[in-house]
Amino acid sequence: MATNSLVDLKKLSPKFQDLYAKTKDFVENDCIPAEKTFDLQMGKGDQRWKVIPPVLEELKAKARSLGLWNLFLGKAYAEGAGLSNVEYGLIAELTGRCPKLAPEAMNCSAPDTGNMEVLAKYGTPAQKEKWLIPLLNGKIRSAFAMTEPRVASSDATNIELNIRREGNEYVLNGLKWWISGAGDPRCALYLVMGKSDAGNADKHRQQSIVLVPAGTPGVTVVRPLPVFGYDDAPEGHCEIIFKDVRVPVENIILGEGRGFEVIQGRLGPGRIHHCMRTIGIAERALEYMMVRVTDPARRTFGKGLHEHGTIVADIARSRIEIDQTRFLVLNAAQKIDEGNAKGALKEISMAKIAAPNMVLSVLDRAIQAHGAGGLSDDFPLAKFYASSRTLRFADGPDEVHISQLGRNELRRADETRAKFQRQQEKSRALVSKL
Amino acid sequence: MATNSLVDLKKLSPKFQDLYAKTKDFVENDCIPAEKTFDLQMGKGDQRWKVIPPVLEELKAKARSLGLWNLFLGKAYAEGAGLSNVEYGLIAELTGRCPKLAPEAMNCSAPDTGNMEVLAKYGTPAQKEKWLIPLLNGKIRSAFAMTEPRVASSDATNIELNIRREGNEYVLNGLKWWISGAGDPRCALYLVMGKSDAGNADKHRQQSIVLVPAGTPGVTVVRPLPVFGYDDAPEGHCEIIFKDVRVPVENIILGEGRGFEVIQGRLGPGRIHHCMRTIGIAERALEYMMVRVTDPARRTFGKGLHEHGTIVADIARSRIEIDQTRFLVLNAAQKIDEGNAKGALKEISMAKIAAPNMVLSVLDRAIQAHGAGGLSDDFPLAKFYASSRTLRFADGPDEVHISQLGRNELRRADETRAKFQRQQEKSRALVSKL
Amino acid sequence: MATNSLVDLKKLSPKFQDLYAKTKDFVENDCIPAEKTFDLQMGKGDQRWKVIPPVLEELKAKARSLGLWNLFLGKAYAEGAGLSNVEYGLIAELTGRCPKLAPEAMNCSAPDTGNMEVLAKYGTPAQKEKWLIPLLNGKIRSAFAMTEPRVASSDATNIELNIRREGNEYVLNGLKWWISGAGDPRCALYLVMGKSDAGNADKHRQQSIVLVPAGTPGVTVVRPLPVFGYDDAPEGHCEIIFKDVRVPVENIILGEGRGFEVIQGRLGPGRIHHCMRTIGIAERALEYMMVRVTDPARRTFGKGLHEHGTIVADIARSRIEIDQTRFLVLNAAQKIDEGNAKGALKEISMAKIAAPNMVLSVLDRAIQAHGAGGLSDDFPLAKFYASSRTLRFADGPDEVHISQLGRNELRRADETRAKFQRQQEKSRALVSKL
Amino acid sequence: MATNSLVDLKKLSPKFQDLYAKTKDFVENDCIPAEKTFDLQMGKGDQRWKVIPPVLEELKAKARSLGLWNLFLGKAYAEGAGLSNVEYGLIAELTGRCPKLAPEAMNCSAPDTGNMEVLAKYGTPAQKEKWLIPLLNGKIRSAFAMTEPRVASSDATNIELNIRREGNEYVLNGLKWWISGAGDPRCALYLVMGKSDAGNADKHRQQSIVLVPAGTPGVTVVRPLPVFGYDDAPEGHCEIIFKDVRVPVENIILGEGRGFEVIQGRLGPGRIHHCMRTIGIAERALEYMMVRVTDPARRTFGKGLHEHGTIVADIARSRIEIDQTRFLVLNAAQKIDEGNAKGALKEISMAKIAAPNMVLSVLDRAIQAHGAGGLSDDFPLAKFYASSRTLRFADGPDEVHISQLGRNELRRADETRAKFQRQQEKSRALVSKL
Repeated sequence: MATNSLVDLKKLSPKFQDLYAKTKDFVENDCIPAEKTFDLQMGKGDQRWKVIPPVLEELKAKARSLGLWNLFLGKAYAEGAGLSNVEYGLIAELTGRCPKLAPEAMNCSAPDTGNMEVLAKYGTPAQKEKWLIPLLNGKIRSAFAMTEPRVASSDATNIELNIRREGNEYVLNGLKWWISGAGDPRCALYLVMGKSDAGNADKHRQQSIVLVPAGTPGVTVVRPLPVFGYDDAPEGHCEIIFKDVRVPVENIILGEGRGFEVIQGRLGPGRIHHCMRTIGIAERALEYMMVRVTDPARRTFGKGLHEHGTIVADIARSRIEIDQTRFLVLNAAQKIDEGNAKGALKEISMAKIAAPNMVLSVLDRAIQAHGAGGLSDDFPLAKFYASSRTLRFADGPDEVHISQLGRNELRRADETRAKFQRQQEKSRALVSKL
Repeated sequence: MATNSLVDLKKLSPKFQDLYAKTKDFVENDCIPAEKTFDLQMGKGDQRWKVIPPVLEELKAKARSLGLWNLFLGKAYAEGAGLSNVEYGLIAELTGRCPKLAPEAMNCSAPDTGNMEVLAKYGTPAQKEKWLIPLLNGKIRSAFAMTEPRVASSDATNIELNIRREGNEYVLNGLKWWISGAGDPRCALYLVMGKSDAGNADKHRQQSIVLVPAGTPGVTVVRPLPVFGYDDAPEGHCEIIFKDVRVPVENIILGEGRGFEVIQGRLGPGRIHHCMRTIGIAERALEYMMVRVTDPARRTFGKGLHEHGTIVADIARSRIEIDQTRFLVLNAAQKIDEGNAKGALKEISMAKIAAPNMVLSVLDRAIQAHGAGGLSDDFPLAKFYASSRTLRFADGPDEVHISQLGRNELRRADETRAKFQRQQEKSRALVSKL
Repeated sequence: MATNSLVDLKKLSPKFQDLYAKTKDFVENDCIPAEKTFDLQMGKGDQRWKVIPPVLEELKAKARSLGLWNLFLGKAYAEGAGLSNVEYGLIAELTGRCPKLAPEAMNCSAPDTGNMEVLAKYGTPAQKEKWLIPLLNGKIRSAFAMTEPRVASSDATNIELNIRREGNEYVLNGLKWWISGAGDPRCALYLVMGKSDAGNADKHRQQSIVLVPAGTPGVTVVRPLPVFGYDDAPEGHCEIIFKDVRVPVENIILGEGRGFEVIQGRLGPGRIHHCMRTIGIAERALEYMMVRVTDPARRTFGKGLHEHGTIVADIARSRIEIDQTRFLVLNAAQKIDEGNAKGALKEISMAKIAAPNMVLSVLDRAIQAHGAGGLSDDFPLAKFYASSRTLRFADGPDEVHISQLGRNELRRADETRAKFQRQQEKSRALVSKL
Repeated sequence: MATNSLVDLKKLSPKFQDLYAKTKDFVENDCIPAEKTFDLQMGKGDQRWKVIPPVLEELKAKARSLGLWNLFLGKAYAEGAGLSNVEYGLIAELTGRCPKLAPEAMNCSAPDTGNMEVLAKYGTPAQKEKWLIPLLNGKIRSAFAMTEPRVASSDATNIELNIRREGNEYVLNGLKWWISGAGDPRCALYLVMGKSDAGNADKHRQQSIVLVPAGTPGVTVVRPLPVFGYDDAPEGHCEIIFKDVRVPVENIILGEGRGFEVIQGRLGPGRIHHCMRTIGIAERALEYMMVRVTDPARRTFGKGLHEHGTIVADIARSRIEIDQTRFLVLNAAQKIDEGNAKGALKEISMAKIAAPNMVLSVLDRAIQAHGAGGLSDDFPLAKFYASSRTLRFADGPDEVHISQLGRNELRRADETRAKFQRQQEKSRALVSKL
């Protein structure tokens, strides 16, 4: 980072520099070495969904003792560590190097982070007491239930899960899928988005979000969905049926019809976190690639792999792509820091489009350099590829962000046309004097 | 096919047209509908490696009764169906639409096909009797053991497994991985490539191939290697230890030091088969994509998905990429038909480079059109992606083929320079008269 | 060609093989060596638009004596050479190697070819006598006036030039640009497309095409438009004002309101010719690249340029791209041969999209291999790039063809959905028996 | 800029903010409106190389009066404006919007800037008096003669021009080309790189740079070389013969054998200037594209061009590519500011590779949106494309920078391998306790 960034680490606060150094050490020297242990401690068969490998709790304890805990919660929150989005972005890059363990060890893993933000920002005191505190303490986990199988979720106004008020209760009926984390035995809470007022003329006021405790009658976790064959146990990405699920009306977030408002506040920083973690993944992939191609045992046609021009070029391109994407993401983070997520929509879109595509391209090259082994679990590359591939849909597919960004940019067209006209008038005036 | 090919189906023999129509019907109406049954009949846990789903044997019986059996074996073989490489290529495209079931149902699946070719071409009468006949009858399966984990196998001269003659036996010691099919309980034979004469000054005469029956003492199938998260049970891609494995000297193929000669004869048509199957996969992926984006339930931002310009463009690009790749592959097949695999090296390289990259690109777009569901097993796309990704290494990585193709093309440089010089002389003569 | 094509030259008629061999010899040994002379014989300053270099007439005479004349006119025409579209496509690839001289020398250059086809197909006997005969004899040249500067011509229904009937005359008023060939002193005829019935409810019946002799009062050739910095004298791409231009009503082609019908018949084969010429350009560019990178005087960092892996890869990719594009184009030609241009719309679109993009990519690599010299006129590469770049707009921009192709392909969606449903029903039936 | 950059304009010094605002106003409201006048004031025919359009001197006078003069000269120089590389980079982006007029109007155009830096840094008092002062005053212009036609100049050790000492004189013999600015009637000085000690074992000590006044006997400017048909008069890119050219030994820069040392100091910041100007070009191209596609007169198929999804996507991609490239370039500038050009080699390479490719891609899309008009001189896009294309060779071709960057990055391989080993040891230690 230090050598590849407009953001000069040395100019950030000493407190942050300390956190940064500690995080780096923790990720490289505690988390990454624990990956193998985590895999071995995972259960077999159905137990994969019931056992949390003990090494994870050990890492959590260590992170907390080091002060590397809940760093995602920014200045706006009493409970927060007070980092700016740029600062936390740099931390997220580091945790991205070990995406399975580091974020959760530091209580900074999705979707809990976004859910905690929602509760901290919009939660009632009772909601905070009941859900936010245990989440902040890493005692429970949570899920966010938005995507549905039967509609094109890329347009969020399409969601259909029905939320009906009956007396002091909301009754939920509908089907969700790709609910990440819902397979985790510690998952105690779902934030469920549905339609409470499908007839509202304002398509962005039809939705509400309600809190549904895991185990509420009528909730059935049907199955985890695999991603390229990976089930991502124990968290999983689950399909869930909500059938006549009843929760008290106190469980609504912010109020009826305000679901869109809630998710808009939630998504900005969360996208930055995701994007910065992909930078970390890409850096680690590039490290694997460099170590592989300089392995003295791997020579072909009389040369080391790293002496083949196309491989050198692959490394150079990866270096460029990673760095330019990091800048895009940090720039979006800075834009949020300077104002708010809404004012940084364009910058966030750019980061959201660029980062997942970048990391897939870097990972693909790294896999290729490893031969078939790169597709196996002897290296983390294929798993990284699979989870990174989901980011081209998560929080909106590429296509939607590209379209929004393009139309956003086109808003400058009118003023640009006016400028062109002024310039042409001046030009004609000059020419007329010739 | 019929509408998108320079190869005019109507001009091929009536016998072939009949085979083609039968295969198409068999794949579309028997194999594809059986995919779900196959999955459900698979064992759970360790049983995945022990149970062969009964539906497969039913399909095999039907294919054989239809005459759709061993079609891969060309005119050169007494046992063969007599198809040309172009003809069998067109059949392989069809079986590629259902890659899990159709090729094996028709006894045309790798690596058996290549192994049968080797035995048919180079096998002694005893070897044929013992191994080729049951393979041709679909009674046993086989594997080809070449790739090794500790060296850069993209340069095949690097392989290290040691083959030592002791009296009337060969003794094998070494480690192999990515041995496809070795997990199958029906796998009865390994063709093992190793070095019998590591000191030979001719690097292409150091290798031999010997036949090792499964279960020979000293052979340990260590583990299947996953591809992304898929284990491809029951066949699998396995790591195998050969420790003091002894086989009679009669088990050598063709003779000591002739391993390279054998694999060179084996690879040409096999690559065409792989490539044509990827065309079939790509066509099926495009069908999935078209059905998805025209699904009336999936509208975004007021439009059907198929009305978004970028999606239409993705479909157009896929159509172009598939067709132009099919032509490359059929051209290579035709070149082999006109002469032999050696004379078609350039055309085979082009097909081998282009086809896997094409299908990955088409699959990626199809996945994207399906949202996260495209990564799950609710659709065959992610699994197709994973298996197609291996083809960028199998039989040599892209990089090796690109390098060989480029250098092959550059052989024309000298004659082209001579032509340029003649043209320049003529040009100067003309100019001098002005 | 012979080594890189599904179309087996040896199976084409001996008569064609002879034409092909003669054309190849003529292009390589007469036309290419004459390029320098042509440039030196060009006038300076304004004379560039008045002088036709004598070497061109010499080449025309030779081509005609060799029987290499008007080969573009197919079997359908009494005047034609009787070649199929595939056959003429192969000829056009050869002439594309020397695009400045060979097509015109053989009286096969655009836009005359399309204009001659229109006159041969739709012309009255008087129109043929007056215009077609001299065109077929290479005595005059012609232009086709469709594109207009003030509307988006990519949608041809937008054109605005007004054609008004007054008594026995049509009166034309409007502005055209990019009228190729209109700068040539030999250009004697414009085929002008305009609106004769702008109020017609059928947007494709509003247009007519009328013949306007060069020099008709009211016609002003305003200026040639440069392409990058090239003016393409003496032909040029001109802007033309039509102001109260009067021609007799006999000068209409086919009849009022039939302009679209005429251009649709005109465009199919013409696009194939353009595409095949780009293949020829690409092959010549690749030859330049290979000769350059093997130049013994050009070594960098201790190696010949052709020993650098990225350059070898560039050559390999160019080889693949050229060959797969040739197949696409020949396939479209064959499709036209088997039926007609209308039935081959999809194949023509694919060729039209792929070929210009391919040649630009090959040219860009070839330029890069030549260093800055590649951008100068010491090599033909930059000029080839400039003229090839226009083909991404000519006869419709990429975007229009991509959109049409995608929507054309999507017509298969319904039948595919029906097939999927049948397959799923069968699948469910099988599963239900488990 | 203000909205798209990690570099917060508001945090830069008020003095710089003032310069920035003045430059922006000057470029947009003085330079761009003067482009047409400049073109009209250019001479015709040979006069193109003799006439300097008067509007340029007017712009120079205005820029100087505004204090927008010699801003490129950094803090290190007594004569300098004291801007950092980041600051001047931001200025260069603005001048890049009008590359023909703004840089020269502000006395900041290549190659004079680099030559002035060399003279300021290494010049003797006499050299400064004679050449630097008039250059700084915009009274004369200069050229830098390095590239040669007969060798692969991408490896600068290949240059062959001979510099031989005879008594108190150096005698130069050799051939140069692509000497930008040498066609300008005001060009009074060439900095010529040649070999003064071809036998030196150290390949980087063989070269010297000597000052050759224009008009010195033996110097023949043979011809300007066109770039895609553009001659770039009056500056031009010229071929020059040096035949027995004699200059006094006082004309050497820094000393014999120190040519490489000189050019290395020269290239770093100069590359940043080039790259930032390409950002400005890209921004202006994107403006043209947006104005074009929102032109109400340009509708196709019932929609405005800006309503077609693929065009919106092109704009979005351009926005991303421009911004991420700007970050790369500013980062390199900042790295130089923090240390020196040598320490920023990697960052400079990244910028040098990315910027020209980015601007070509943005320009190509902008051209495409303009139809054939985009290739003409009615818009500045084609000319921008041509001049930007030279940047993929200038100061070293892409291939050389990619190779250097890749190898530079690979220097991290050993320490990364060591880190991996430490991590694996820790991992094994953890596993062993399970």
